[in-house]
Amino acid sequence: MDARPVGVFDSGAGGLTVLHECLVTMPHEDFVYLGDGERCPYGPRPAGEIRRFALEIASYLETAGVKLILAACNSATAAALPALQERLSVPVVGVLAPEARAAVQATRNRRIGLLATEATVCSGRYTSAIRALDAGAHVHEVACPGLVPLIEAGAGADPRLADAVRGYAAPLKAAGVDTVILGCTHYPLIRPVLERVFGRDVTLVFSAGETAREVAETLARKGIENDPDREGSCRFLTTGEPEELRALGERFLQLPLERVARVALTELARAAAA
Amino acid sequence: MDARPVGVFDSGAGGLTVLHECLVTMPHEDFVYLGDGERCPYGPRPAGEIRRFALEIASYLETAGVKLILAACNSATAAALPALQERLSVPVVGVLAPEARAAVQATRNRRIGLLATEATVCSGRYTSAIRALDAGAHVHEVACPGLVPLIEAGAGADPRLADAVRGYAAPLKAAGVDTVILGCTHYPLIRPVLERVFGRDVTLVFSAGETAREVAETLARKGIENDPDREGSCRFLTTGEPEELRALGERFLQLPLERVARVALTELARAAAA
Repeated sequence: MDARPVGVFDSGAGGLTVLHECLVTMPHEDFVYLGDGERCPYGPRPAGEIRRFALEIASYLETAGVKLILAACNSATAAALPALQERLSVPVVGVLAPEARAAVQATRNRRIGLLATEATVCSGRYTSAIRALDAGAHVHEVACPGLVPLIEAGAGADPRLADAVRGYAAPLKAAGVDTVILGCTHYPLIRPVLERVFGRDVTLVFSAGETAREVAETLARKGIENDPDREGSCRFLTTGEPEELRALGERFLQLPLERVARVALTELARAAAA
Repeated sequence: MDARPVGVFDSGAGGLTVLHECLVTMPHEDFVYLGDGERCPYGPRPAGEIRRFALEIASYLETAGVKLILAACNSATAAALPALQERLSVPVVGVLAPEARAAVQATRNRRIGLLATEATVCSGRYTSAIRALDAGAHVHEVACPGLVPLIEAGAGADPRLADAVRGYAAPLKAAGVDTVILGCTHYPLIRPVLERVFGRDVTLVFSAGETAREVAETLARKGIENDPDREGSCRFLTTGEPEELRALGERFLQLPLERVARVALTELARAAAA
């Protein structure tokens, strides 16, 4: 039994989609969520910078006493997961690999599309993960620089959002993919729009549920779960405006974010330097 | 080929969850959605009254020239589907039966829970539909009078909503059900809350996708589909405040409701009397 919380981080509000799945799977655990709202989006940034931000945040969470860190951000996972695992003593779980596996399992015509940030597309991690599982699969990657800013601005029903999604979807439709990976934890926040644009014949893959299961299994196998009969809690931290994170969580996930505190970038940098 | 729109109606905004699935399945069809916001909720009303309202609305839509009517409301389906089918000349499709089938298919311990309005629970239609498919299934029905008003008020992240859901879920958890039917088209609008309350081991059944498929197949078999290469449109009508329907659709389904008009109750009554 281990009463320490689990740490979850993302560039902004997108990781809340993964936190939601964790709450469905592990209602008895405590969570600390940290969104880097001040430096969101990560997608257009170079890998080295994303790695530095991720190391700062993970170090801060480790110093704060979490028992496991979940990188609930595809850009950070693509750029920084090995570095985080080398640097920290607590276990670090990322996203990305489960989606590649789910897409290979789901596709019937072996044409798989990917919507992701520039950083994730540039890393080439999805294509290599998919090709490792099926060397004959065709992967069509589309970088979507416009989506995270629109989602963070709360533009769920804004026609500009649907237009942007249609634009990014067009080359995937032209390529005849039957499976599309939502390779950014922000994208499930606009799942209804994506469903309408891709229609019934395309399978959308987003693996937060499987990521949550990986966290649960890791805690169980290490014997560091919390008491299964208790009710867990969540704390929220952001480097940006607490009110923005609160509004996004409540709007998109119906998650009442009662305790949102601000954490200064200097505190993150100090944790990484320690 | 038939260019007439499909009519969809509900007591309020709940039917938008079914409309969304129709848009995913039939992006080339036109739709007219009518929400009876002025008289929402239907759930606490006697069956005869719900039947009268449903007949008014369906007659109005038929007069307006729709080619098929979808009763996207479980209370109206439970109270009025046979009456609508006897009275109208256009085909009428309801919800409810596909959910019973899906629940019987999904359950492993043959204990099925139902969350629905009082009117739907009183009708006994779910239990009889489930027992017709599996005479050994146990059905635990819970009427949830508080949910539709909270959802129509837009209370997605309001802690009172999660408290209400926990209260309604308690007897189903105590009964050990492994499958719960969301027997009201409003409930998918709060799916994240329901997922967190029931956890990973309970399957939530909501069959709007199958209902949309039934509409598509009906249009195809009757040869009254629209041109598959065109892009369809939606018009929205409400007996209540247009702004309320717009806000709910945009908030919960990311559906930009650009054209919402008000229709007077007297117009509905006139259509039914004609």
